Amino acid sequence: MIVKDYRNVDAQSSADAPGVSLRWVVARQDGAPRFAMRVIEVEPGCATPHHSHWWEHEVFVLSGAGVVKGGGREQSITEGSVVFMPGEEMHQFVNTGDRPLRFICMVPHTDVDAPSCIDK
Amino acid sequence: MIVKDYRNVDAQSSADAPGVSLRWVVARQDGAPRFAMRVIEVEPGCATPHHSHWWEHEVFVLSGAGVVKGGGREQSITEGSVVFMPGEEMHQFVNTGDRPLRFICMVPHTDVDAPSCIDK
Repeated sequence: MIVKDYRNVDAQSSADAPGVSLRWVVARQDGAPRFAMRVIEVEPGCATPHHSHWWEHEVFVLSGAGVVKGGGREQSITEGSVVFMPGEEMHQFVNTGDRPLRFICMVPHTDVDAPSCIDK
Repeated sequence: MIVKDYRNVDAQSSADAPGVSLRWVVARQDGAPRFAMRVIEVEPGCATPHHSHWWEHEVFVLSGAGVVKGGGREQSITEGSVVFMPGEEMHQFVNTGDRPLRFICMVPHTDVDAPSCIDK
């Protein structure tokens, strides 16, 4: 087994997503065969990209407050909110609060799991 | 998309695991094609079964304190701890604190993803 504190994993940022940091806390290099765990933090007033892709997200909100946009709708999220975002749905996570919006975001290994391999 | 509060999902318990409750917060019936999210709570002095199975766990500890046993070793866990437990490794989560040990535990859909379907 591998045990770590998520805060000890390097946080990555991207010019495409100002105010957003991402930690790959369980990834392929840990031996994970199917899916990965990331911890994402969005600064107040910032948001993740508004985009879509073939893979799903499974999200658990750890702290902060915001809204999630998906499929043309918008819903509030806060500590304890769970989001299932299906593949191909346009989505975005927006921090509408005054402290970081922090959440876990699970994704399949996008370079291994092809949509043809699953029961859809 | 689906948005819910994890506390609104029914908690299941089992006679095999006294003091342990489990909520399937993202499951197949939500449309999740590959993997599921559960929120597990272990009461003080209690533990999850000491067992193994072919599938992996990816765990994020939300609150409380305990130890995780895996592969003959034991490590402390608390808020912010991340655990990757490979398939086939004997494991157990033990609450050694004085309040519930609460964690997210991700698993593949065990009735869909056969080990032969993945890159191992």
